[in-house]
Amino acid sequence: MLFHTVYFWLKPELTVAQRADFRRGVETLMKIKSAMKVAVGVPAATTRRPVVDASYDVALIVQCKDVAAEAAYQVDPIHLAFVEKFKTFWTRVQIYDSE
Amino acid sequence: MLFHTVYFWLKPELTVAQRADFRRGVETLMKIKSAMKVAVGVPAATTRRPVVDASYDVALIVQCKDVAAEAAYQVDPIHLAFVEKFKTFWTRVQIYDSE
Repeated sequence: MLFHTVYFWLKPELTVAQRADFRRGVETLMKIKSAMKVAVGVPAATTRRPVVDASYDVALIVQCKDVAAEAAYQVDPIHLAFVEKFKTFWTRVQIYDSE
Repeated sequence: MLFHTVYFWLKPELTVAQRADFRRGVETLMKIKSAMKVAVGVPAATTRRPVVDASYDVALIVQCKDVAAEAAYQVDPIHLAFVEKFKTFWTRVQIYDSE
């Protein structure tokens, strides 16, 4: 199992409506066939510690079967449309792929 | 569902045996009752991109029911024993909690 975890920091000037639109955009990724499971979240209210980064706005955790499935996810039309529509919304994106 | 994702950077001077010991140590966390699912991995061989951080050594992805379950995970004796035994093994740990 491969975990593709993505953390987005959004532009501070985005409106509430734009943030909601972004959230819906991330949720469209759930429909991608090469993704076995997709979870979308925000920073959880766990105990604040220096090692815990809770400064991001949206978390996206995608589970794929393997590297080939993650590669297919990247070029899926739904993913490409998401990136094209929302790439101007974030200031930073941090990704970790593990398996 | 809460995702507690942890990325460890180990001390470069660790031996192969110490690294294997660390891996086994991380895998003991799978036995913690308040963790619904635990995945342990290393950087996947996905396409290298500036936004993908593949510099860590070990990834730990824990799924808990909620914030209370994650708090219980933190103080579980298995988790405390892991931290006590291996806290000198890493140079950096980066955590994200999302739900």
